[in-house]
Amino acid sequence: MAAGTGSKALSQAPVLSAAESDPRVMGWMQGFPPPPDKIIMQPESDYFSFPRLRWSVCHIRQLLPTVEISRGIGAPVPLDYVDVLAFANQRAAIDALTFKPIGADKEMTWRESLDANYTDGILILHEDRVVYERYFGCLDDAGKHAAMSMTKSLTGLLAQILVAEGRLDENALVSSIIPEISRSAFATATVRQVMDMTTGLRFSENYSDPKADIWTYSAAASPLPKPADYKGPNGYWAYLEQVQPEGRNGDAFHYRTVNADMLGWIVSRIADKSVAELASERLWRPMGAEQDAYMTVDAKGVPFAGGGLSAGLRDLGRLGLLMLNEGVIDNKRLFPAAAVQRIRAGGDPAKFGTNYPALIGGSYASMWWIFPGRDGVFAARGVHGQTIYVDPAARMVIVRFASYPQAENNLIDPTTIPAFQAVADYLKAKPQASDVEPPAAVPKPSNR
Amino acid sequence: MAAGTGSKALSQAPVLSAAESDPRVMGWMQGFPPPPDKIIMQPESDYFSFPRLRWSVCHIRQLLPTVEISRGIGAPVPLDYVDVLAFANQRAAIDALTFKPIGADKEMTWRESLDANYTDGILILHEDRVVYERYFGCLDDAGKHAAMSMTKSLTGLLAQILVAEGRLDENALVSSIIPEISRSAFATATVRQVMDMTTGLRFSENYSDPKADIWTYSAAASPLPKPADYKGPNGYWAYLEQVQPEGRNGDAFHYRTVNADMLGWIVSRIADKSVAELASERLWRPMGAEQDAYMTVDAKGVPFAGGGLSAGLRDLGRLGLLMLNEGVIDNKRLFPAAAVQRIRAGGDPAKFGTNYPALIGGSYASMWWIFPGRDGVFAARGVHGQTIYVDPAARMVIVRFASYPQAENNLIDPTTIPAFQAVADYLKAKPQASDVEPPAAVPKPSNR
Repeated sequence: MAAGTGSKALSQAPVLSAAESDPRVMGWMQGFPPPPDKIIMQPESDYFSFPRLRWSVCHIRQLLPTVEISRGIGAPVPLDYVDVLAFANQRAAIDALTFKPIGADKEMTWRESLDANYTDGILILHEDRVVYERYFGCLDDAGKHAAMSMTKSLTGLLAQILVAEGRLDENALVSSIIPEISRSAFATATVRQVMDMTTGLRFSENYSDPKADIWTYSAAASPLPKPADYKGPNGYWAYLEQVQPEGRNGDAFHYRTVNADMLGWIVSRIADKSVAELASERLWRPMGAEQDAYMTVDAKGVPFAGGGLSAGLRDLGRLGLLMLNEGVIDNKRLFPAAAVQRIRAGGDPAKFGTNYPALIGGSYASMWWIFPGRDGVFAARGVHGQTIYVDPAARMVIVRFASYPQAENNLIDPTTIPAFQAVADYLKAKPQASDVEPPAAVPKPSNR
Repeated sequence: MAAGTGSKALSQAPVLSAAESDPRVMGWMQGFPPPPDKIIMQPESDYFSFPRLRWSVCHIRQLLPTVEISRGIGAPVPLDYVDVLAFANQRAAIDALTFKPIGADKEMTWRESLDANYTDGILILHEDRVVYERYFGCLDDAGKHAAMSMTKSLTGLLAQILVAEGRLDENALVSSIIPEISRSAFATATVRQVMDMTTGLRFSENYSDPKADIWTYSAAASPLPKPADYKGPNGYWAYLEQVQPEGRNGDAFHYRTVNADMLGWIVSRIADKSVAELASERLWRPMGAEQDAYMTVDAKGVPFAGGGLSAGLRDLGRLGLLMLNEGVIDNKRLFPAAAVQRIRAGGDPAKFGTNYPALIGGSYASMWWIFPGRDGVFAARGVHGQTIYVDPAARMVIVRFASYPQAENNLIDPTTIPAFQAVADYLKAKPQASDVEPPAAVPKPSNR
């Protein structure tokens, strides 16, 4: 998350359910003014702890300075939907799908999984058309939600586009592009090692540990005034200049957000544009986005390439379609197919380790998660349950925004990965949408 | 301006010209990272002093937390343009118009006035069509610019809509709607007195005086952490609760930003929506805006109803058309004509005083400036040269964003008011656009 977020360990009290912690039920920020104990503010309140985070994920820009990812000013290109009747039928069918959560004895329905996962918005695209869409909690279809570490995948895609276009040499040393980091652990790393997070850095990224380096990093990154006695670096890039080595570059995958910000710096210097500007130019404008997105910034205006993105659910659906279709959307090619192909080729599973039980045998490449198995699944993932999940075998994209109480996707994977697989299996087996009867005058069901 | 803006008095050095102070020429925030002396940041740098303000007016959201005024997610409704040839011809004709600045001996051309006024964007609509449009400095047609005190007119319009719809009683005492201010100077004021700024309050609003109350107000309003020894109120509304009386309600017009925030609070409580939400629902969404707008917020998330708006130039053109056409745009009525009619009816010129030399004989009503003279001109105005200028007699709207070095519209009026009048006279006299020849294959001139 962005600067100043204090994702504290949860108390031992029973955690509120999705329904109980719904921000509208909690009453956060309702009324003019809200009651004092219902005000969420930066920096006094612990705005990114559950259950407050269930409001904050939709309102990052009210808490922090941000920079726009402009969609431009033309008309959006609407997503295709299956017809009204098919949509209603498929939604009922998907809601009723059952699966067995990893490690559980009892089956769960898809619909139940949405609450179990504290889902705020979920979109399923099949054969390039929307077949399922729901909003909960703080989100609606005109809202924006924190993408958390999915931001890394955006940065990784932009870098991979530059590589595919021959503008960025993935084998170059980072120090040859960014001389400022010559005395840091990045000096001897290659661009590819940064993209795949196989750099040897000293950096702990355990969001549940309040002493983790990630929070020190957040202090550097905060756009708020530094405390008078603050001695640390100011800004993402100043922090990167002093990261120390630990282990050897290229040896193993270690999930460290600083790599994404290093990559953001590389992308910015190569493209002579910020990550936000490049995301607008290469993705949001040409893909016909319906909303601007935005990114949090540090005190020097640098967008948080490792976690600062907030965007609309359907716009990340467009991004998912671009990944599924290797750079093409609405019959328009936005970037070389080689960019996605390289991401899908993945990294070395032997280096991936065992920190992510549900993904063992997979890899992390160009800031995307490559799943094990034969379906070629790959995903952007962010803490608290964010994902853009691309299943090429099923021709399916699932985008989920969530506000799961804990900052730990390993806890949400058990009710997620088999659920997504159940939908993929259903979509692979079901008759094509074009075979379904023509639309009747059935109103589209409420998307709550 | 928003919290923390330190619009210091100008030094005695010669002021840079518009061309010299162009942010691209100054090099603000260019490079990855920019050179240290070219970084504009909050709160360390004095980001709202000239010449930095020429960058900052387009980048408020990168410096402060903000809340969106959503345009929704549908297609924008494009503004009508005169055809390409007419546009080119009229632009040349308007550029060449001459006028005599107030108090000057020498004539100036319209084109020269744009530089004299540090114009960042200017749009002229005639008979509901765009006849002139140019961007300079930090702005382009997909950018947003600080509207400054034009925000008050937005708040005033929303209040006037609620009055016209019978939801807000302009004769009610403020304390009957907002009991929280019962011990402040607002307690005995009516809603109408707040709308017309004829309240009797102790509040100095001289932006050029660093000791003015407006800066104390800004401290209360700042979304940044308060200094440890800070004893003042936190937030716009907490400040309002303790404003002291001075003079008598209803006696005279005194331009005081706090009235706009009082009105914002009234509007929010009546509509049960923030000013930003209401502006989206009643204006930005239904008028077919092409960009979201946004407002700065205080530490409690309250939008700055007195000055926090940033918006696209053409979207304020749409707002201007709504004012010109009394609530109608694209043949759709968004609010009762009575709302605009009441604004145009104005306040009592006898109470207006002589603080605004170019406007003597006019008035201030519902947070709009009603000009003297028979053409029925009225305007939203904001420091540093912002205006939405509506001339019903000429069927003309001019929207200007600017970053004039000083926070004092009396200095820019002499090169503005006669210039606008010259365009009005030209448009009244010229053949109707429909009489002009059909378009040839002439490219639209660059809008720089």
